[in-house]
Amino acid sequence: MKKFVNDPKQYVPEMLKGIALANPTTLKYVPEYNLIMRADAPNANKVSIMQGSGSGHEPAHVMIVGRGMLDAACPGDVFAAPPMDYVYETTKLLASPKGVLHIINNYTGDRMAFDMGREMAEADGIRVGTVMVDDDVSVKDSTYTVGRRGVAGNFFVIKALGAASEQGADLDALVELGKRVNSVTRSMGMALTSCTPPAKGSPLFELGDDEMEMGVGIHGEPGRRREKLTNANAIVDEMLEAVVSDLPYKQGDNVALMINGLGGTPISELYILYARAHDQLAARGINVQRSYVGNYCTSLDMAGYSLTLVRLDDELVKLLEAPAEVAVRIF
Amino acid sequence: MKKFVNDPKQYVPEMLKGIALANPTTLKYVPEYNLIMRADAPNANKVSIMQGSGSGHEPAHVMIVGRGMLDAACPGDVFAAPPMDYVYETTKLLASPKGVLHIINNYTGDRMAFDMGREMAEADGIRVGTVMVDDDVSVKDSTYTVGRRGVAGNFFVIKALGAASEQGADLDALVELGKRVNSVTRSMGMALTSCTPPAKGSPLFELGDDEMEMGVGIHGEPGRRREKLTNANAIVDEMLEAVVSDLPYKQGDNVALMINGLGGTPISELYILYARAHDQLAARGINVQRSYVGNYCTSLDMAGYSLTLVRLDDELVKLLEAPAEVAVRIF
Repeated sequence: MKKFVNDPKQYVPEMLKGIALANPTTLKYVPEYNLIMRADAPNANKVSIMQGSGSGHEPAHVMIVGRGMLDAACPGDVFAAPPMDYVYETTKLLASPKGVLHIINNYTGDRMAFDMGREMAEADGIRVGTVMVDDDVSVKDSTYTVGRRGVAGNFFVIKALGAASEQGADLDALVELGKRVNSVTRSMGMALTSCTPPAKGSPLFELGDDEMEMGVGIHGEPGRRREKLTNANAIVDEMLEAVVSDLPYKQGDNVALMINGLGGTPISELYILYARAHDQLAARGINVQRSYVGNYCTSLDMAGYSLTLVRLDDELVKLLEAPAEVAVRIF
Repeated sequence: MKKFVNDPKQYVPEMLKGIALANPTTLKYVPEYNLIMRADAPNANKVSIMQGSGSGHEPAHVMIVGRGMLDAACPGDVFAAPPMDYVYETTKLLASPKGVLHIINNYTGDRMAFDMGREMAEADGIRVGTVMVDDDVSVKDSTYTVGRRGVAGNFFVIKALGAASEQGADLDALVELGKRVNSVTRSMGMALTSCTPPAKGSPLFELGDDEMEMGVGIHGEPGRRREKLTNANAIVDEMLEAVVSDLPYKQGDNVALMINGLGGTPISELYILYARAHDQLAARGINVQRSYVGNYCTSLDMAGYSLTLVRLDDELVKLLEAPAEVAVRIF
């Protein structure tokens, strides 16, 4: 296994420790509940926002905790939902008079943990709202979901809600806004290679040297179909058609375009994919108003990428432009 | 070859086109000379700063052009120095009354191209200064260098000089500052896997399933030795000792610590390495004042990382903290 690891059981805790050490004034690591939270949370003047999901998708979500983004993330182990009591404890730690918002990617395990965690917190008198993200157009149901999966489009929901919460929006308004952002966001992913969870020590699935998996999930779940490997432009064209036709995005729309690396793909290749997607959107009369190229929601060391579109309006643009600070940054 | 590529010959131009499309108001792509430059360069009130080197190290250097960083980057093809006439043309495009600064990583090919490009520009009456970066402690001479190689420590030289140039520093002062930053910066890298240049289509070198290359160069050049793969902590400890003892960094020093991914390593693993390096520096009484974790100077899809230390003083901290804007970012 070609990975930097000590004890696979300590993969997540050691990573969380590193995040906190690198951000000593802004972030706090609470080992008992496997969580990263803002050092200044909760803030009585804002709704607290949290997300939990399996680890292995970094920077989502433990590295996007910070001002204007999440107040906390309580991850599970690699590709595993967080325990419900961690959801509960994180919710308690974040309890603000304005309430706590749970953002959940649509996976059965995450939904169960958050449903139960929310019920326990509500029994304590904490107000909890929920926003579900299900942006993946690849398949209707999948290995780990009823309904569509939540993937990299999640970033836009978090960015918009994080900004609105800093501006004082209340819990009900945030829930409505989250639903609205999710409703204009669509994604699709594909893989050139498998990925290797540290505890397994071998690839999660097999993919031939001349094969790719179109519509792959972020835990290696099967997608639409396995195809012969082709070139970058043909891959983008197929995925863009699937994403654009789903909402559908139309001539005259302003959009955010995200080309998200799945962990093992160099950023140089992501820009090759971006150039094609931008050109093809322009040919359809769809205007790329904001661009996001990099690793946002990954699958460990998987080579592959996902494409996300968000239909923009003035309010959403302002929220996406608002300042934010997180662990993943270059300066 | 599991890469997103159309025509391998168009790998770099398609990437550069993507960078410019994603940053339409701030960056400009000049296809004739394969260069990315700030849309507002040259600025008569500042020295222009440029770097050229082989491609395949992204985000270095084409994605770190912008305010407070480089004014332009003129890359060569993957792992190849830029042609001298591109260096010359880029220098001309950047010509400012305050002069043009060349930052060069110490490789024989890059030095030749920049030496000749500088002479041609000087013949046109352009003032040119040069800063050489050679931060890699792994080997004294190497496959492509006389003397030490320039690797990820380069980022700190660019960041400091970019900030100082925005504040109006003149060419001589920048050359002195660049030498000073380079003199307190040391790096070492290692590889878990090889990398695949798109034009070659197969791995650059072979590395067994249970092997790692300690001290590897960013073009896959051999390092100190090939060893049996071990755990994350042991790898950090060996590299930290090599880097710390070289300057040497001493008890009481304040440092910047960079854990730089080589392209194919997930950021989760970089934070595991970071946590160990931070702890080991603390045990030596060396204080990590600034942290950098992510992909800064890569080798295509290579799994591996490099560790860089910079000894800080108040002036340098202010320059590293100064605002900057580049293509590689998450918001």
